[in-house]
Amino acid sequence: FGNWGDDSGTGVCFSRDPSTGANEFYGEFLMNAQGEDVVAGIRTPEKISALAKKNKAVYEQLVKIKNHLEKSFRDMQDMEFTVQQGVLYILQTRNGKRTGQAAVKIAVDMVNEKLISKEEAIMRVTAEHIDQLLHPMIDPKAIKNAKVLTKGLNASPGAACGQIVFTAQDAEKWVKEGKKVVLVRKDTSPEDIGGMVVAEGILTSTGGMTSHAAVVARGMGTPCVSGATEVLVGNKVVTIKDTKLKEGDWITIDGTTGNVYHGALPLVDAKITKEMDIFLNWCDEVRDASVRNNLKGFDVRTNADTPEDAKRAFEFGARGIGLCRTEHMFFDKEKLIHFRAMIAADTVEQRKAALSKILPLQKKDFIGIFKAMNGYPVTIRLLDPPLHEFVPKTKAEIEELAKLIGIKPKDLQPKLDRLHEFNPMLGHRGCRLAITYPEIYETQVEAIMQAAVECAKKKIPVKPEIMIPIVCDPKELAVLRASTQAIVDKYLAKAEAKDIKVTIGTMIEVPRAAILADKIAEHADFFSFGTNDLTQMTYAFSRDDAGAFLPEYIKQEILPFNPTESIDEEGVGFLMKHAAENGRKTKKDLKLGICGEQGGDPATIDFCFRIGLTYVSCSPFRVPVARLAGAQAVLRNSKK
Amino acid sequence: FGNWGDDSGTGVCFSRDPSTGANEFYGEFLMNAQGEDVVAGIRTPEKISALAKKNKAVYEQLVKIKNHLEKSFRDMQDMEFTVQQGVLYILQTRNGKRTGQAAVKIAVDMVNEKLISKEEAIMRVTAEHIDQLLHPMIDPKAIKNAKVLTKGLNASPGAACGQIVFTAQDAEKWVKEGKKVVLVRKDTSPEDIGGMVVAEGILTSTGGMTSHAAVVARGMGTPCVSGATEVLVGNKVVTIKDTKLKEGDWITIDGTTGNVYHGALPLVDAKITKEMDIFLNWCDEVRDASVRNNLKGFDVRTNADTPEDAKRAFEFGARGIGLCRTEHMFFDKEKLIHFRAMIAADTVEQRKAALSKILPLQKKDFIGIFKAMNGYPVTIRLLDPPLHEFVPKTKAEIEELAKLIGIKPKDLQPKLDRLHEFNPMLGHRGCRLAITYPEIYETQVEAIMQAAVECAKKKIPVKPEIMIPIVCDPKELAVLRASTQAIVDKYLAKAEAKDIKVTIGTMIEVPRAAILADKIAEHADFFSFGTNDLTQMTYAFSRDDAGAFLPEYIKQEILPFNPTESIDEEGVGFLMKHAAENGRKTKKDLKLGICGEQGGDPATIDFCFRIGLTYVSCSPFRVPVARLAGAQAVLRNSKK
Repeated sequence: FGNWGDDSGTGVCFSRDPSTGANEFYGEFLMNAQGEDVVAGIRTPEKISALAKKNKAVYEQLVKIKNHLEKSFRDMQDMEFTVQQGVLYILQTRNGKRTGQAAVKIAVDMVNEKLISKEEAIMRVTAEHIDQLLHPMIDPKAIKNAKVLTKGLNASPGAACGQIVFTAQDAEKWVKEGKKVVLVRKDTSPEDIGGMVVAEGILTSTGGMTSHAAVVARGMGTPCVSGATEVLVGNKVVTIKDTKLKEGDWITIDGTTGNVYHGALPLVDAKITKEMDIFLNWCDEVRDASVRNNLKGFDVRTNADTPEDAKRAFEFGARGIGLCRTEHMFFDKEKLIHFRAMIAADTVEQRKAALSKILPLQKKDFIGIFKAMNGYPVTIRLLDPPLHEFVPKTKAEIEELAKLIGIKPKDLQPKLDRLHEFNPMLGHRGCRLAITYPEIYETQVEAIMQAAVECAKKKIPVKPEIMIPIVCDPKELAVLRASTQAIVDKYLAKAEAKDIKVTIGTMIEVPRAAILADKIAEHADFFSFGTNDLTQMTYAFSRDDAGAFLPEYIKQEILPFNPTESIDEEGVGFLMKHAAENGRKTKKDLKLGICGEQGGDPATIDFCFRIGLTYVSCSPFRVPVARLAGAQAVLRNSKK
Repeated sequence: FGNWGDDSGTGVCFSRDPSTGANEFYGEFLMNAQGEDVVAGIRTPEKISALAKKNKAVYEQLVKIKNHLEKSFRDMQDMEFTVQQGVLYILQTRNGKRTGQAAVKIAVDMVNEKLISKEEAIMRVTAEHIDQLLHPMIDPKAIKNAKVLTKGLNASPGAACGQIVFTAQDAEKWVKEGKKVVLVRKDTSPEDIGGMVVAEGILTSTGGMTSHAAVVARGMGTPCVSGATEVLVGNKVVTIKDTKLKEGDWITIDGTTGNVYHGALPLVDAKITKEMDIFLNWCDEVRDASVRNNLKGFDVRTNADTPEDAKRAFEFGARGIGLCRTEHMFFDKEKLIHFRAMIAADTVEQRKAALSKILPLQKKDFIGIFKAMNGYPVTIRLLDPPLHEFVPKTKAEIEELAKLIGIKPKDLQPKLDRLHEFNPMLGHRGCRLAITYPEIYETQVEAIMQAAVECAKKKIPVKPEIMIPIVCDPKELAVLRASTQAIVDKYLAKAEAKDIKVTIGTMIEVPRAAILADKIAEHADFFSFGTNDLTQMTYAFSRDDAGAFLPEYIKQEILPFNPTESIDEEGVGFLMKHAAENGRKTKKDLKLGICGEQGGDPATIDFCFRIGLTYVSCSPFRVPVARLAGAQAVLRNSKK
């Protein structure tokens, strides 16, 4: 027993530092005490190094033992010991828990020490470890006494702290004044982008893990708690259970846990270490070397809509863009007015005139993205969301548009009203717009090709992959592929374009497209599984509305997990597997990827490897996790 | 040649009357004329009977020939003849085109004359023939000179003519004043029911074949043209291309063709004949005798929500209800306020109190429907649409509700705002409501069972089938089945209920439910394919929004037909077949039906027969067509 006097004692020690991973003996002990005393926190334990002075023999024995145990178990050990009247007893040893930083460092060090193989190192680090390294956290010491106001969905990881604002405009204004803000809203929409960019964090009362707020926040790496149903947003005031908070009050959100705290909690920044870089390169090696049938490698790409996102993802190790959404380009103030004129147009000529104003601006965006990706493939999705999202709403906007196209505001209104949709998710969107208004996609393809040719002239390598969304039928894709190909070929005929390779493919996001994959593959160079929409259609729930019931389904364990976060293998996965198999029956080498939000989820990545996908694509901040999870999938599924 | 003098001539004749089907020689001729003269309409031809006087020999020869030809071809003949200087030449003979009335009468007569078999008779009458017999038409003579304003979707067959009104309230008011009205709207919603019931016809500018307006209109047998995109509805005025029409102006719509006409055109009523009755009974015999594996028969049921609909469908030959939607019962003024109180409730107790007010009223509805169906099965679908459809919108409604539940209107508003949904079709609806608020379904099941027990006491036979909608997961159904079964068992324990058989099943309308049918079947006594929603989810388009692009898809022949009207066999049908096969793998005798709008479509009925469905269900006015189409499916697919 450790409490048999001053030559007795007890302690807990780690063979390496579980916080930093440094190869230093680490621990605490108390003389004349038992295990509970160390844990209870009544007495303050001493550092393990102090034991060397108190009892050198025991200390040296302990060091010897920890070295031996670590070598035997080939992992960092967490040991409990007791000294009874000078005799050392090891009560227990086990592999120690560690922070993300420590996990990576220990894994890399142990490979260098030839204690473990690279493969073992890869299997020992978890996605959560890597994720931790990429986001700020609430100081663990501060969490204990903090008041949790409510819990929402952990929509975008990391902690954020700021003063409450209720509109995107206010967010922009306050931040200009040097303040830090958390944007609190019922939900967000594309018009709020400006405010979302500058906010420290975002809190919404409705919407799920793939609501607009959540998706955009993750894309930007901004912490976000969504679907916090107890948050009732009123007029410049928010009520969370018994607490009323007004504009300017401080709040802290933790997008990693979903917790919302009263007041300003201290945050700690996470560190990116050189070991991480080494480690993730090993992961890439493993993925690159993997072989499935005639398919070599398993790539990680990113979803990125802007040159900035593309650059960041490139630095995080993305090898290409799996999804570049072009709609954000239209929300840009400069382009929006012309796009609105296009929507309200009555004739093809008017539409073309409006689109021609947008073309040079889109081209500039594409050039920036091609440059950032430096020759890696860039999958550009042609316009996807419903037109009505672009409809002007305020009186000023309507008047501005009416003036531009030269009609009276009251004559404009009925045209805009016609664009209203009951279920925009299931409405006039994606390639349906290109069937009714071919000019839209044609303009986008022109912009892509002009950008590609301009890059080629400057010797910047480019690999555009043009992706057509919301396809539900082979003939639909055949028609659109033909019109796209015609424009592409026109540009490829130019001398300076001779080295450009352009492929044309489709999203598989509508259940019918998955079902008819064999016929759709006849017209596609690649498939990209749009698992956000595919999950929504397969379950018949909308990501923006599921917040009202999905948490209850998970709480009651009707669903084992949220299928917008991780692929539902037996339902959505059934369609994916069916599409992958049948697509490849038509085209043996069909390139297959995933660009839904689940693409950054380790279980999903494992599934994607098993069904033969060529790559996964995820938001920039998730790329390092995907590099690891992809390697783990390779190792796990390659076991004999 | 027929123009070689007065002993020459030409004519067209039918071996029976192609308009009524009467077994009378029918035709026209012109002396000293050629074929074109008869058709051109410059000279007025004489009736064929007049030929007997002009040239008895030729007439008698002609009669002999037509009798011979009809006997040889075993069908009514359409013949062209010429008399050249007293010599009769038959230029051509073919099976004659006929009206619906004639088709049925000729088929029945020819069976009685032992010219053809019942099976042949059944194959000769088309769905269009039967449909014609069930709806008023625009007088064919008037159509020629009528001005077609525009063409929309032929959403609900039959012609209607009335004065334009723009709101449901006005429709009710004007009809009370003795006027006939056509309700012209952008779209309709459940609140418009009152006006839709009294209108002669309904014209909408948005919405497809399965939009609210279209579905309700078909259910009521009210002519409807939907998705007429050129109809721009303004403030008490409607602009259709160059024509401006105001409230009170006359308009005629043809829901069979989709045409919209200016002014009041004369309509002709269709006649139901005794031959039709005989004929459809033969169809029933064929279906009843059909055998597929261990499945005998192929039934026709109806979709009916009210005792009136149920009675009408019963008279049309429906053998049971395949879909009784309970939501219309809540829209009833008396129940609506309590239902709204339920929505706004914060606690289970408040919700239960509000629901208890509705229970006796629902019970009454169910008793009426059970009575009308007289022992045939009645499939009752528990509440399906999203709660927000019931949210009060006007100031007066909000104040009324706030008063009832005893809070301030401004405190009520945030509760109501929370119910807003972005994509209601994919929202908090169907059994999702029962997972979050179990009281709702529990109250409905109580009402069903109380009604069943009350009928049993009065010796009215009942066969309730309780159907749970929007199921997407086996566990979800397991939970809801258990709670439903518990209530059912409580009532079945009563002595007077001992003969009542109650089954519990589910809609298959969410793609995931179709995919997981084997596991879902473990908890279901029956499946009913909800092909409206299944089609919407499989294609990812909403019936209310597809009007903006679907017509273009059909025009460009990207889709060969509208999949909301007829089952898309390779997409939606893939899921149905998968579900039918896998459901029956789990339960060999699983009852399978269809209750989507396509259930009344002949091609769909044929498909349903082939994949092993037990029955089809369709709107009351479509029941006779389904009785025929089902028999044809049996005959077509039973051929050696």
